[in-house]
Amino acid sequence: MASTQTENKFSLKRFILGKPLQTQALAEERLSKPIALAVFASDALSSTAYATEEILIVLALAGLGASTLGISIPVAVAIALLLIIVTISYRQTIYAYPNGGGAYIVARDNLGELPAQIAGAALLTDYILTVAVSISSGVAQITSGFPELRPYRIEIAIGVIFIITIINLRGVTESGRIFAIPTYFFLGTMILTLGTGLIRALLGDLPTVTDVEPVHEGAQALTLFLVLRAFSSGSAALTGIEAISNGITAFKEPRSRNAATTLLWMSGILVVLFLGVTLMAHQIAALPSENETVISQIGRTVFGENSPFYLLVLAGTALILLMAANTSYAGFPRLAALAASDGFLPRQLTYRGGRLVFSWGIVGLALLASILVAVADARTTFLIPLYAIGVFLSFTISQIGMVVHLRGVGRLKPGEVVQGREAPITYDPNWRLKLAISAFGALCTGVVMMVFAVTKFTSGAWFVIVLIPLLVYIFFRIHRHYRRVAAALSLTGVPVDVSPRPVQTLILVDDVHAETVRMVNFAKSLGHPWRAVHVGLNPDKVEVVRQKWQQRIGEGELVIVPSPYRLLADPMRRYIEQLQEEEPGGFVHVIMGHLAMDTYWEQALHQNTAVLFNLALSRMDNVIVTSVPYQIHTKLKEIKAGERQRGMGRRKGHR
Amino acid sequence: MASTQTENKFSLKRFILGKPLQTQALAEERLSKPIALAVFASDALSSTAYATEEILIVLALAGLGASTLGISIPVAVAIALLLIIVTISYRQTIYAYPNGGGAYIVARDNLGELPAQIAGAALLTDYILTVAVSISSGVAQITSGFPELRPYRIEIAIGVIFIITIINLRGVTESGRIFAIPTYFFLGTMILTLGTGLIRALLGDLPTVTDVEPVHEGAQALTLFLVLRAFSSGSAALTGIEAISNGITAFKEPRSRNAATTLLWMSGILVVLFLGVTLMAHQIAALPSENETVISQIGRTVFGENSPFYLLVLAGTALILLMAANTSYAGFPRLAALAASDGFLPRQLTYRGGRLVFSWGIVGLALLASILVAVADARTTFLIPLYAIGVFLSFTISQIGMVVHLRGVGRLKPGEVVQGREAPITYDPNWRLKLAISAFGALCTGVVMMVFAVTKFTSGAWFVIVLIPLLVYIFFRIHRHYRRVAAALSLTGVPVDVSPRPVQTLILVDDVHAETVRMVNFAKSLGHPWRAVHVGLNPDKVEVVRQKWQQRIGEGELVIVPSPYRLLADPMRRYIEQLQEEEPGGFVHVIMGHLAMDTYWEQALHQNTAVLFNLALSRMDNVIVTSVPYQIHTKLKEIKAGERQRGMGRRKGHR
Repeated sequence: MASTQTENKFSLKRFILGKPLQTQALAEERLSKPIALAVFASDALSSTAYATEEILIVLALAGLGASTLGISIPVAVAIALLLIIVTISYRQTIYAYPNGGGAYIVARDNLGELPAQIAGAALLTDYILTVAVSISSGVAQITSGFPELRPYRIEIAIGVIFIITIINLRGVTESGRIFAIPTYFFLGTMILTLGTGLIRALLGDLPTVTDVEPVHEGAQALTLFLVLRAFSSGSAALTGIEAISNGITAFKEPRSRNAATTLLWMSGILVVLFLGVTLMAHQIAALPSENETVISQIGRTVFGENSPFYLLVLAGTALILLMAANTSYAGFPRLAALAASDGFLPRQLTYRGGRLVFSWGIVGLALLASILVAVADARTTFLIPLYAIGVFLSFTISQIGMVVHLRGVGRLKPGEVVQGREAPITYDPNWRLKLAISAFGALCTGVVMMVFAVTKFTSGAWFVIVLIPLLVYIFFRIHRHYRRVAAALSLTGVPVDVSPRPVQTLILVDDVHAETVRMVNFAKSLGHPWRAVHVGLNPDKVEVVRQKWQQRIGEGELVIVPSPYRLLADPMRRYIEQLQEEEPGGFVHVIMGHLAMDTYWEQALHQNTAVLFNLALSRMDNVIVTSVPYQIHTKLKEIKAGERQRGMGRRKGHR
Repeated sequence: MASTQTENKFSLKRFILGKPLQTQALAEERLSKPIALAVFASDALSSTAYATEEILIVLALAGLGASTLGISIPVAVAIALLLIIVTISYRQTIYAYPNGGGAYIVARDNLGELPAQIAGAALLTDYILTVAVSISSGVAQITSGFPELRPYRIEIAIGVIFIITIINLRGVTESGRIFAIPTYFFLGTMILTLGTGLIRALLGDLPTVTDVEPVHEGAQALTLFLVLRAFSSGSAALTGIEAISNGITAFKEPRSRNAATTLLWMSGILVVLFLGVTLMAHQIAALPSENETVISQIGRTVFGENSPFYLLVLAGTALILLMAANTSYAGFPRLAALAASDGFLPRQLTYRGGRLVFSWGIVGLALLASILVAVADARTTFLIPLYAIGVFLSFTISQIGMVVHLRGVGRLKPGEVVQGREAPITYDPNWRLKLAISAFGALCTGVVMMVFAVTKFTSGAWFVIVLIPLLVYIFFRIHRHYRRVAAALSLTGVPVDVSPRPVQTLILVDDVHAETVRMVNFAKSLGHPWRAVHVGLNPDKVEVVRQKWQQRIGEGELVIVPSPYRLLADPMRRYIEQLQEEEPGGFVHVIMGHLAMDTYWEQALHQNTAVLFNLALSRMDNVIVTSVPYQIHTKLKEIKAGERQRGMGRRKGHR
């Protein structure tokens, strides 16, 4: 049982998860800029590992010629421009919402519950997809270098998810430190690769890639629709830049400034890497392939197949991707807890585990991502159409929220400060410019989202388009439930009457043994009158119980409730109803025994009657159930030890 | 919740399962011979549908020539002889054990616990296999006539298992009546088919079968080993004859005579049908095939492909097979309950459901058989190697048990009667002859079992050879557990002390609302001193709870237990340990609230703290937990109704 583990200070759980941290420690668990960059940038930067490739895969539908695949360059430039717009817009959000300005909070603060829940549903969906896509792509990098591992890619992917889950259950700072190394390692290998490639290209020494088995070459026309589809696929590069604005509270003070600086750094690096990879891919004439990633083709061509640097590139890319999933491990539980504390998700999600993290959310995320990986066969291309819609939906909502927010700022008098729900709102002379930027950003991301929905509808986007409204509906159902419960429990205007009422205490007796003695002992200790009740399933046993009761307990009344249909709970319920009729408005107090065992399987061999009774009685008004545990496990241990000793004695006797 | 269903007298459960029967009705639920034949013979008779085919499939490994496949006739005759020996031997058992003389009881009575549990494990395994094999073969008959259904055979098979499960949860007499029709229908169609075929053959008018796609023709030599393997496969025809001796108690009085007569009838019919099918298959030159059963080939050849009689043959065979599974539905739960009441299986298996049947066993059987069908792809040939070993193992054990029993009979003086554990033991002048028959039977079945184990080891028998010892091991582990628990609970030689001890009552307070009022009301009604305890996870909330307590309850002490690690149960446990140190030997009584909701999902949204506390506290000695339910569902219904009314009012107002 779980309790056995928590009891033991040197338990497996503690060994794996580390010791629990105090609430005060929360304030100290803050990330410096370089570590925050590593934690929050891994998602955004890692998308450079597949974004270019996904553009090429779509373009390949119109053929594998250099001119066709070359369209990837203007497409990538357009994506980079979009990225710059979104970055500037999000920078404003970070300053306006220093306590965390994710789309959920901005929408809730400015647009109301419905847009907030839509943003929440979109973001939660995308956190899961981030894990699934990143891990799948990471495994694809590994199998590019080691094709013999390809058949096991699902197992590898789920194994990696499991490891990341354990690391995250340990808490965020330690994760930060763990993840700093891979992020900077990736950055280093990419700069080295692109730099070496650039120099070799300038020297006229860079060959084109050889021995690639490309995807099936399509014969479609190179229509605007196809280019837009390529653009949609490549826009996956933008996922992850919202991570910082969701996680501002994890930064060291001054939070907003540190977060904004980190965001600029991250976006800058992202633009350079994404354009660099796309240009280099074109330079070496990389081909989209199911067996080898574009990054692998670049590394192999730049450094040569047998160079240790090639393996370093693969390792760095795989690592950043596998670690990118970590962004979601920080973001998903945090957002889920936020929505849960607003009453739109189950309350359990707000519990912090022993290590200051939201254990429930982390485990849920890991499970859902694992299912997605298994269903999508660990192939990035299957997941990409589901991806990014949610991100762009939340971008759009967030920026519309900022437009409303900035209109509010514009209404203030110069120098005026108003206390908003989330943070103080200060007059800003530049509010018109900022509003224009946010509005332009919202327009761009909104249009891009529409392009996604249309160009990818049949290849999977429909699923997300159905899923998000469904999630929002469920969130509101949950919210309504909690609201109703609060209303039902409210004491406002209700007279509080706690004057004592009559109590009839019943001891439920199955047989007469040590557990029964314990129950009788407790009932007598309460000092309230009681009687024992036995449900008579078997006439022979009834007689035995009656006799044993006389011999061993010898006091109190033993009532036999007949059960002609051999049911346990029904006759008991009828008997209680009868007692309640005799004494209306009183409590009926049922005392039951519980044998506490050491292991699940032992417990399962005894979990019979109590479950049935509890089910039946828990729905009766004014019927209170008391469970008297008998710690039989200590007795059982003595008996086992005795058996062992006798066994050894016997063996010795034989000699 | 389940309770809601049992509460409602007009529930779905009752509609499907019928109304509950009283214990006294047990005696009346007895089967007449014709109905008993239908219930218990379906398993044995139905095996004629596949036994011949399985012989041919093995022989096909040495080629599809008529002389090779013709070996099936001597093989079938040998199997028929074995059947006669086993029948005579089992007839003796039925007379010796009129209260039910399955292998389990005979072994337990004469050989001890270990052989009894081996027989039990073997029989339980075979009951499951009977369901899987019969249903798979039944579906194969259907798909012989309707090849377009072949892709759905697993779904059909599991659907049929589901239907039989429902029928059996209704109780045995009704099943008997339902199953009488198919058994006699099958008998009728088979007699008609074999009779017509015989007449046409005598008239020289019977063609050989055409258009069969045979199984892959092997090139092995026709060795003794192969013939023995064919013999093993065909011996599946014997499975099911033990059903009557297991189920004697279901017969009308005089039980033993009725059961013995039914056994003779059953075996006679079985021999005729099995030899008839084998001869007829040879006559029409039937070929073993994956797509068409031998029965289908015979029916098609005798009556012609478009004859309605052909379809009747398929329907009759499919029905008897699908219904044959019913034997296991009578036998499995009965045997499981027997082993459970001896303490070798979980006690839950001894509970009778509302309809005098052992609901748990029935559901377990259905689940395991469904898994087997799914794993074996609903193909009989994959399951046959697992089958029959268990049956012959239990045959052998049972007959060895009878040898021991009859030796005991021989020791009595003429006319002497001794009260045995299971039934009175009477002197019998023919005990030497009977002993010789049982011993010969045991020898034959023992040898056949060895032949099985050797010839089928690699094709699946190894699984059963591993499984049965494993099951026996588990049975003994369970038994040891129950023995230890009984010893731990025993009051023999233990002084019974129920003198009152001090009780400290704590009310666990999460927030102050209607549920809290209910708890305080109960604690006050008990008339024992109490105090309220709040685990302080969140400093802000602690203040709110303290204030609300003052305002709304205004009496009693509210203790705040600080929780710096934001854990719920741990601080509470430490607080209780402290109380126990202050007052050693006393009880600590913890009162918790429980919100009773209407649906599972509503309940899940609240099942948070109670589960954690229960887990932690249930392992503490002398800590008693009381759950005070608050029937919030009635309040919630009022609130929902109010919302609807307001909603309607609003809509009217708009008009």
